[in-house]
Amino acid sequence: MKLWQKKDFNIDKAIEKFTVGNENIIDQKLVKYDCIASIAHAKALHKAGILNKTELSQLIAGLEEIMLLDSKGEFKITVEQEDCHTAIENHLTKKLGKLGKKIHTGRSRNDQIIVALRLYERHELEEIISAVSRLIEELNKFSSKNSKIPIPGYTHLRKAMPYAVGKWAEAFSESFRDDLALINSSKKLINQNPLGSAAGYGVPVLNIDRNLTQKLLGFDKVQNNTLYVQNSRGKFELMVLNSLNNLMLDINKLSTDLWLFTSSEFGYFELPKEFSMGSSIMPHKANPDVLEIARAKAGMMKSYCDAVNNIILNLPSGYNGDFKLTKEPLFNGIEMAGSSADIMAQIINGLKVNEKRCREAMTSELYTAEEAAKLVKQGMPFREAYQEVASGINKKKQD
Amino acid sequence: MKLWQKKDFNIDKAIEKFTVGNENIIDQKLVKYDCIASIAHAKALHKAGILNKTELSQLIAGLEEIMLLDSKGEFKITVEQEDCHTAIENHLTKKLGKLGKKIHTGRSRNDQIIVALRLYERHELEEIISAVSRLIEELNKFSSKNSKIPIPGYTHLRKAMPYAVGKWAEAFSESFRDDLALINSSKKLINQNPLGSAAGYGVPVLNIDRNLTQKLLGFDKVQNNTLYVQNSRGKFELMVLNSLNNLMLDINKLSTDLWLFTSSEFGYFELPKEFSMGSSIMPHKANPDVLEIARAKAGMMKSYCDAVNNIILNLPSGYNGDFKLTKEPLFNGIEMAGSSADIMAQIINGLKVNEKRCREAMTSELYTAEEAAKLVKQGMPFREAYQEVASGINKKKQD
Amino acid sequence: MKLWQKKDFNIDKAIEKFTVGNENIIDQKLVKYDCIASIAHAKALHKAGILNKTELSQLIAGLEEIMLLDSKGEFKITVEQEDCHTAIENHLTKKLGKLGKKIHTGRSRNDQIIVALRLYERHELEEIISAVSRLIEELNKFSSKNSKIPIPGYTHLRKAMPYAVGKWAEAFSESFRDDLALINSSKKLINQNPLGSAAGYGVPVLNIDRNLTQKLLGFDKVQNNTLYVQNSRGKFELMVLNSLNNLMLDINKLSTDLWLFTSSEFGYFELPKEFSMGSSIMPHKANPDVLEIARAKAGMMKSYCDAVNNIILNLPSGYNGDFKLTKEPLFNGIEMAGSSADIMAQIINGLKVNEKRCREAMTSELYTAEEAAKLVKQGMPFREAYQEVASGINKKKQD
Amino acid sequence: MKLWQKKDFNIDKAIEKFTVGNENIIDQKLVKYDCIASIAHAKALHKAGILNKTELSQLIAGLEEIMLLDSKGEFKITVEQEDCHTAIENHLTKKLGKLGKKIHTGRSRNDQIIVALRLYERHELEEIISAVSRLIEELNKFSSKNSKIPIPGYTHLRKAMPYAVGKWAEAFSESFRDDLALINSSKKLINQNPLGSAAGYGVPVLNIDRNLTQKLLGFDKVQNNTLYVQNSRGKFELMVLNSLNNLMLDINKLSTDLWLFTSSEFGYFELPKEFSMGSSIMPHKANPDVLEIARAKAGMMKSYCDAVNNIILNLPSGYNGDFKLTKEPLFNGIEMAGSSADIMAQIINGLKVNEKRCREAMTSELYTAEEAAKLVKQGMPFREAYQEVASGINKKKQD
Repeated sequence: MKLWQKKDFNIDKAIEKFTVGNENIIDQKLVKYDCIASIAHAKALHKAGILNKTELSQLIAGLEEIMLLDSKGEFKITVEQEDCHTAIENHLTKKLGKLGKKIHTGRSRNDQIIVALRLYERHELEEIISAVSRLIEELNKFSSKNSKIPIPGYTHLRKAMPYAVGKWAEAFSESFRDDLALINSSKKLINQNPLGSAAGYGVPVLNIDRNLTQKLLGFDKVQNNTLYVQNSRGKFELMVLNSLNNLMLDINKLSTDLWLFTSSEFGYFELPKEFSMGSSIMPHKANPDVLEIARAKAGMMKSYCDAVNNIILNLPSGYNGDFKLTKEPLFNGIEMAGSSADIMAQIINGLKVNEKRCREAMTSELYTAEEAAKLVKQGMPFREAYQEVASGINKKKQD
Repeated sequence: MKLWQKKDFNIDKAIEKFTVGNENIIDQKLVKYDCIASIAHAKALHKAGILNKTELSQLIAGLEEIMLLDSKGEFKITVEQEDCHTAIENHLTKKLGKLGKKIHTGRSRNDQIIVALRLYERHELEEIISAVSRLIEELNKFSSKNSKIPIPGYTHLRKAMPYAVGKWAEAFSESFRDDLALINSSKKLINQNPLGSAAGYGVPVLNIDRNLTQKLLGFDKVQNNTLYVQNSRGKFELMVLNSLNNLMLDINKLSTDLWLFTSSEFGYFELPKEFSMGSSIMPHKANPDVLEIARAKAGMMKSYCDAVNNIILNLPSGYNGDFKLTKEPLFNGIEMAGSSADIMAQIINGLKVNEKRCREAMTSELYTAEEAAKLVKQGMPFREAYQEVASGINKKKQD
Repeated sequence: MKLWQKKDFNIDKAIEKFTVGNENIIDQKLVKYDCIASIAHAKALHKAGILNKTELSQLIAGLEEIMLLDSKGEFKITVEQEDCHTAIENHLTKKLGKLGKKIHTGRSRNDQIIVALRLYERHELEEIISAVSRLIEELNKFSSKNSKIPIPGYTHLRKAMPYAVGKWAEAFSESFRDDLALINSSKKLINQNPLGSAAGYGVPVLNIDRNLTQKLLGFDKVQNNTLYVQNSRGKFELMVLNSLNNLMLDINKLSTDLWLFTSSEFGYFELPKEFSMGSSIMPHKANPDVLEIARAKAGMMKSYCDAVNNIILNLPSGYNGDFKLTKEPLFNGIEMAGSSADIMAQIINGLKVNEKRCREAMTSELYTAEEAAKLVKQGMPFREAYQEVASGINKKKQD
Repeated sequence: MKLWQKKDFNIDKAIEKFTVGNENIIDQKLVKYDCIASIAHAKALHKAGILNKTELSQLIAGLEEIMLLDSKGEFKITVEQEDCHTAIENHLTKKLGKLGKKIHTGRSRNDQIIVALRLYERHELEEIISAVSRLIEELNKFSSKNSKIPIPGYTHLRKAMPYAVGKWAEAFSESFRDDLALINSSKKLINQNPLGSAAGYGVPVLNIDRNLTQKLLGFDKVQNNTLYVQNSRGKFELMVLNSLNNLMLDINKLSTDLWLFTSSEFGYFELPKEFSMGSSIMPHKANPDVLEIARAKAGMMKSYCDAVNNIILNLPSGYNGDFKLTKEPLFNGIEMAGSSADIMAQIINGLKVNEKRCREAMTSELYTAEEAAKLVKQGMPFREAYQEVASGINKKKQD
């Protein structure tokens, strides 16, 4: 039975299926965080005089039991239950009777889902930050190891000026550090306590201490206006996803470079054989699917941002049923960011440099800017030096 | 064992997991279509002298067995098998020994996946066309039933001119008919035979009759250039999704109208109680979640288009590993279009008109354009008639 | 003075600037089409008895004068006039006095803008179709000229199987032909007469013959439901842009191939010197900016589709002020498609093949699928032939 | 003459037009910032011994003259000059002869454009922050003035619980404050010195002090890796646009609320007459175009993010010609954010509350959650209280 289901009421089955979708499966990720938030909420209910000490202990024990079951994969949300909130309340009521019917006092699923999402996001962003840090470390190791090997620097995919393999890798490690800064900004911004805002218009009659739950849940502050709590649904998720999109764009560029540089035409790098896949028709092939998948995931991540943004466009204030659909792209995006950073770290760890091909590629045109600079050093104005070197190149071509 | 796996070769497990993703689950939808195409391919191999008559019969029997198992949900693709193509070949080889090893002659997974996708798309588009046709029928019934009930016509969400409930519904039925035309265009455009193009560069040595498989599979023509077959991957899927996006935009507008018109402020329509959902905190609520979900799905559909488009941007000719990721948004989009059209048909079927509220809303300002037109009929130039009526309104306001 | 401005009324200047934006400049493109539609509309007013024969002639002469001025760049819409409709009516009224005030009888800017847009779109799509046809011709010429030159076929940007330069070009010409089919479908779908639907709720009192204007303007049919006319705003523009996006995706792939194949690492093709741009610091550079810009324009085109789609998401039926913003991405997208097809035709016309580099690239691994096929021809099951060839390759590597 | 043009070289005119596009017009916005950066660069050249003291003074005077001309609208970039960098160097060379040819020493247009963009972005973000701050102030004033007027709180666009007009406005002011935090994060992240990275591979031979230009230009730090400078092109612009998109989403929601609440059906608020626009056919209309345009601009902003993201997807490291196209969406987005915040401030300033309509809307169903809470206060478990109140509502309906 759903939390809002009245005694004389039956929802149409097809409508239910369409409306709930796969929410019961998706919500499985939130069970733990809903329990953590529910424990904090129970403490606030105790402070407000709604629960006595024994009741509080029993509810906490019940919620901890659910977390334990969940960690073992034994707490399953059914379609009829629709979401994690219902499954948890049902479990408590089944176990604790009347007491279970008290846990939803002073809250709504509207603030309950938001608090669970934020705890989840905060935790996952920390995991992603660790994964990106490991990737940065791998890039740094690779950079140090190959600091002396030259490689052409490209502009417009045309040989431009001399560079070094180590510097190439360093470009990415500096880039990923900036990504971490933006991820941290998002993490900080969403770290506000939504609990106590209920359906978006506060808790009537009862006295729920929002500062208490803020402290218990480690939020930086209370999100003060109760309507803003609802209005930030989707907006905060988009902010999180946009910061991860930034990360995926860097992974996309890194993959693209590797895809080019491991081709036989460039040949600067080699993917270990066990990272490649074969062809069903051509026996000789060793394909860089892993790079292409990593690259394509950036396109997918952008579509997750797109989904959340589309869904919230042109909607009025307050909770809208549309918000439910923002969960799936959020969960997908978070999973993707972490696993992609992990795999890139592994790839960089296994990546080999073909020093011979690198050195062979250091052809003379890479040094024209240097030649011009030397003429400048001798006193020639730069633009004249540029024309002088250019004429020399043309003369050579005509010879 | 994968189709391309050589005897001395082991792929890294983490790389495999990342690269394969949930492809084995996703591909389940394609088993049937891969078998149908494989039967046609086997006939072409027979004609080319690669298979004798008995071998052909045995392979067809094997493939039909797979289709039967699949229809009962008993043919499962494992992670190690990676995709439906491998699962099917493995099954045939296990059952038929050496003969199973012949089925992949003269083809590549690159054309095999495309042929399966097109058969799948064609079939699903037909199902969607049926669902939309049912929706149009419901709208037509609703339109006839309510043709005489007046309702304000809006521009800028401000009362504009008189309209009728029946005409309002007719607007959507005419719109959905145009959507069907675009869906049919996409269906026609993708109905080209990719088989025989192999990895994108044709089948060497052997003589595979592409016209034969075209006829057997009901394609309108052979997609002639073999590289174009690969280059149309993603492009064709985007075309299909864009035509469905068009449909979802209409469902989005229909849902938005219903969401407004069933609100207590407008009150023109009523959703049956069994189509509504409740609130966990406010006992009085009957929420139109079904309309909001239908509306939000248009935003999701657009993100599926976005995903496919992002993935294929800036990629060179020929098969790229990135293409694998286009399957999930395609499958999601197709499922969404059909189920949304179905649910809208059901909603229109159950929708009630509150005639009293409709009639009460027919206030005088709705008739100013008519007043001006009457003055025109009497010979006054339109722009003067407009100013005349406008002055009258202002005078009334000041009184 | 604006069409809707009443005598005692002043719009706030900042609001006006924000609301009108650059619409007066953008609308310049529509003056011609608005006049053409106004002539047809005047004929319908004549048939309805609103205009006598002399009045009709005078209005037609006035509208033809505007078209002449416009063709010489001498008809300019001012900011105060806001849009082309107002500028045209103002001009007629200034010239013809009271008669000018009659032209807006029985129509609204809401159907007036739509009819102008459709005539514009139809004309521009025809121009684009011509440009794409020229591009196809260039590709065919290039293909014939280079049909015998071999080039490696790639999958995953790794050498796969032998191909020919001519076949590579043919892939694109076949692809562009499919694009034309989709563009033609869009052109057909939008070719419906919106005139006579006025603000979205028809013309009261007066008898405007919608079949007459349909025939005069060359539309395939009347768009029957008047509300649907408004609901198709944005939807039709998106359909047009999506069909052009398809085209740009092909231009994107063609540019990407050329960008790779003209690099020194691949070297199969050469861009004529006069198609390249230089570097401000490196005297030796000849950069393929034109290819990169053509490629990037596909990303821009997609953003135009995105804009129109975003704007119409979650909007209710009837005219909404938001629609104004859909004009700019539409105009941008149409201009882009035509000019990009033109430039690609010119590039293909000037493109040179470096036959020597092509032939040098035809290395042995390109022939493994052929080797396996030969073993199949001799009777070996394909999967065994595949393993046999694979073992051979590995042995060679170890030697 | 372009900076990279050699003496024997002519670019094809059509190619030039396509490649340059409207860059010369767009770049007009950057003249000032390019001059500021060039002055800093000249100082670094002086420190490096390339320019003597007199030369430095002359170049600074020349650059200041350009800034003065530009501020009066008298410095125009021509199509042949292509961009602001060329126009500035040409001007200096015309004025200072050989000395003008020295200014480009030790830099490339690749780092020159990035430094100009960052100075521009930083300045514009500060302007936007001011505009948003004014909007917050207006919301706060409106909130205080209307703190006691009740208004229904909505969920699912259905009356939910009692709220206050002041609290409604406060939701937005809190939301905009969070937007400022994200805009500030972007501003901080992009505030890194790119100068001295030249084409992406550093400055050969000469000794350009990157810390000096960092301090002179007020950057927080040097962007250390020279390739990363190029790789952050587009990425930083997307970060800026994403932070502005966040802002536009809030403006979108505010506009949507106002659009609903100023309709005759809701009637809680009134737009001043001078903020409304009329209809060309219906004399009575006062349309909220300004709200619809503000709302639609959020859809446009998202398309600017989309454009930049699409363009940089799947590109390899280093400068790519595609980057040029990222300027237009950036400039458009920045202009839009500032002007939209400005206009919203003005709207809130003029907005009127219809207290009578607000009070009439406070119907009984808004108090069911309160009733349930009162029963809880008396000791009833919440879920039972909920069912009790629900039964009461049903009974009333049946009576």
